Amino acid sequence: MKYGIVIFPSKTLQDLANSYRKRYDPHYALIPPHLTLKAAFETEVDAHSITEKLEAIAKKYEPFVLNIRKVSSFQPINNTIHLKAEKTPQLEGLYEDLYASLPGDKPEHPFVPHITIAQKLSNDEHSDVYGQLRMLGIEHEETIDRFHLVYQLENGSWTVYETYRLGKDPQ
Amino acid sequence: MKYGIVIFPSKTLQDLANSYRKRYDPHYALIPPHLTLKAAFETEVDAHSITEKLEAIAKKYEPFVLNIRKVSSFQPINNTIHLKAEKTPQLEGLYEDLYASLPGDKPEHPFVPHITIAQKLSNDEHSDVYGQLRMLGIEHEETIDRFHLVYQLENGSWTVYETYRLGKDPQ
Repeated sequence: MKYGIVIFPSKTLQDLANSYRKRYDPHYALIPPHLTLKAAFETEVDAHSITEKLEAIAKKYEPFVLNIRKVSSFQPINNTIHLKAEKTPQLEGLYEDLYASLPGDKPEHPFVPHITIAQKLSNDEHSDVYGQLRMLGIEHEETIDRFHLVYQLENGSWTVYETYRLGKDPQ
Repeated sequence: MKYGIVIFPSKTLQDLANSYRKRYDPHYALIPPHLTLKAAFETEVDAHSITEKLEAIAKKYEPFVLNIRKVSSFQPINNTIHLKAEKTPQLEGLYEDLYASLPGDKPEHPFVPHITIAQKLSNDEHSDVYGQLRMLGIEHEETIDRFHLVYQLENGSWTVYETYRLGKDPQ
């Protein structure tokens, strides 16, 4: 099975992201707006063993504030436009622990926490769209208290297997 | 917010359902294949209070076997074609407890647990499609050990808020 680990932000932020994804992201219908903590990885390890590791990791980190202050782009690496999240010790810790303790390749690039709003654009589209979106005044913050293990179906869409709440004594 | 409570069956069953939903279900891109335990309900009650009730209900029921033996239709009530799940005490108990303890209208029809594979068909389409699908030899069983609280985004799609594992001592 192919798994991934993501944070789904609040409905407010998901609705905002979808207003752009609808036009500019071909993955719009495959998964709700999300912040990826660990990119898709293929494994035969069963979900139950993954779950035990994820529970242990979730306990290590208390809920934290997610801050979004700008729209950014990964150019020249690729044409993905995203809501850039400010790094926090919890986001970095989660990311490192997940990569260290689960199957899958090491990341190709340093961790830049983000919520994708446009991807697979041509260079011209990218210039147009990024030119408009980078001017948006975005100031959003919210508390993140959970993450999700998701798996991919044959049609490319993703289903949630389990939710993990952050903290020693989650509410 | 508009919430719902669903079971996502195994990847195998979801892939099978999607092979039909892709052509015959306009909700295909809005949510993965699912068995609805409580239909969409609107409430201002916050997710945290809902969660406490759902945790208590999940503890009351041990994991159970979901049995699918036939494709069926809700005609003449509507043109929804579905994988019909055999009733179990756990499914009926969950359904009754969820309706009893959460906001939302009482159900209009008796509980028929199912996974929708086609809906909003014209009467002619329904006859054609149901004529083909009812002949499928379906024999599927799997263990269900969890359900999910989902909420709806502005675009009509659904995001998972939380997973609840069945049983006093969930694995």
